[in-house]
Amino acid sequence: MAHGFALLENVDLSVVVNTADDLMLHGLAISPDLDTVMYTLAGLANTDTGWGVRDETWSAAGMIERYGGPTWFRLGDHDLATHIVRTAWLASGNSLTDVTRLLSSALGVHAQLLPMTDSEVHTRIRTVDGWVEFQDYFVKRRHADEALELRFDGIEAAQANEHVLAAISVAELVVIAPSNPFVSVGPILAVHGVLDAIRDSRAKVVAVSPIIGGSAVRGPAAVMLRTLATDAGAAGVARHYAKAYPGLIDVFVLDTSDAGEAAAVRQAGLDPHVSGTLIPADDDRRRLAGELIKLA
Amino acid sequence: MAHGFALLENVDLSVVVNTADDLMLHGLAISPDLDTVMYTLAGLANTDTGWGVRDETWSAAGMIERYGGPTWFRLGDHDLATHIVRTAWLASGNSLTDVTRLLSSALGVHAQLLPMTDSEVHTRIRTVDGWVEFQDYFVKRRHADEALELRFDGIEAAQANEHVLAAISVAELVVIAPSNPFVSVGPILAVHGVLDAIRDSRAKVVAVSPIIGGSAVRGPAAVMLRTLATDAGAAGVARHYAKAYPGLIDVFVLDTSDAGEAAAVRQAGLDPHVSGTLIPADDDRRRLAGELIKLA
Repeated sequence: MAHGFALLENVDLSVVVNTADDLMLHGLAISPDLDTVMYTLAGLANTDTGWGVRDETWSAAGMIERYGGPTWFRLGDHDLATHIVRTAWLASGNSLTDVTRLLSSALGVHAQLLPMTDSEVHTRIRTVDGWVEFQDYFVKRRHADEALELRFDGIEAAQANEHVLAAISVAELVVIAPSNPFVSVGPILAVHGVLDAIRDSRAKVVAVSPIIGGSAVRGPAAVMLRTLATDAGAAGVARHYAKAYPGLIDVFVLDTSDAGEAAAVRQAGLDPHVSGTLIPADDDRRRLAGELIKLA
Repeated sequence: MAHGFALLENVDLSVVVNTADDLMLHGLAISPDLDTVMYTLAGLANTDTGWGVRDETWSAAGMIERYGGPTWFRLGDHDLATHIVRTAWLASGNSLTDVTRLLSSALGVHAQLLPMTDSEVHTRIRTVDGWVEFQDYFVKRRHADEALELRFDGIEAAQANEHVLAAISVAELVVIAPSNPFVSVGPILAVHGVLDAIRDSRAKVVAVSPIIGGSAVRGPAAVMLRTLATDAGAAGVARHYAKAYPGLIDVFVLDTSDAGEAAAVRQAGLDPHVSGTLIPADDDRRRLAGELIKLA
């Protein structure tokens, strides 16, 4: 979705990214969501897997495995360089915001890529086996467990990124991306000040459904909608947003295949907009982004 | 040379390695000499370059360059994994000795690979531009500057590795490898207790000349012999050892091409042994190692 806006001309784009999935591995600071967005906007993303870098090599991962290191979170060689440089720059006293700006501008990204906070926030998920770290649940256990409860450790003390608040205050359009409402969108909106900033801004607020035809394109959003919100479908997402963030969202975009749920979205208090939301190609992305701008 | 002994059966081999060239780069703990020996004994070494891993890939180095990171010390992807794992294990409280044992045994190295010390020692070299770090001199400036003076910062406080002292105390043969006498052998012998341990042991002490036909196979040994010891040739190395470490060395091995210097070696007080010391192939290495064992 962010890539769609980046492909348009005359769009001043800031992308606010979840950092509650960040982890330390092999002593390296890894920010999976920031990197996925950065690689996508830089044209380096592996679009087959949905994470990591295209034409990646795996030499270091093979050696780390020989050394008996953890292998459940596979780090490609290009990707590893990002984590090494990030870790070194953080260790020199730079904030994650500063490091993200330096990394993304080095890769030719024009958009302002913003971690939701420079504070540490860690998503933990309660499964039948108890509370687990987000990446344990998501990568190691391949999100096979039912997510029974969520918490964002550190969220109370987390300070909103001032650039995030500034970008929202002048925005004409705020888009809640077609991402997981619970573990990707949820932490961002849970950072103190972010919700108020969106409510206080003049921006049109548009959320795009991550559920298409009853399921998520990738990841556990559809399953979480069932276990965490006892709901289903695109309209279920709209109901969740309406309930969790009353009055926040103006327009809810749902896929043409879910057009039958438009009335239910309206019933939840959101203005439905039906469009093609499966956007694998640049042209699709550009088209949907253009449509959202017209809504604003 | 170490590889020659490792190729022999019934040899209990400990390799004591210089760590005064170690450096931190991108926040990673890099031990170039330990790694060169480890990769060589593991059969992974790049024998063309004399450093790094065979069939290396360079994906991370390319990304680090894009990020504007330092590129003068090129880190291959396999090699990077070694530094990442080492750094993580050191950060967990393991000593460099422990980490080296874990790394080398994971790669199937049977020999005991021992850093000379777990303390930090840093070789610095005085050039006409002043004192520079060893790797600045060696890699960044490609040892093009004249080395006018050496110092090993931290050597006074450095504690000898207890495993080094133990290995020496029971050794039947101590071989001073055909390595740079000043910056590779020198720091090891400068660690408190090492010289005494060798002198106190019953071991035959054999030094192999790093100078063949007046020049070093690789690196600045021949030039340093001129600037730091005002001498030259294989016999010059023998004279340097005799002067710097009186009574330490029993036999000095020089290459057949330097047989004419045998008398000068004897004059310096060392017992000359002439042999083929250029040992690129496994067979050569095994043969020379066998000869040295016979000397003992």
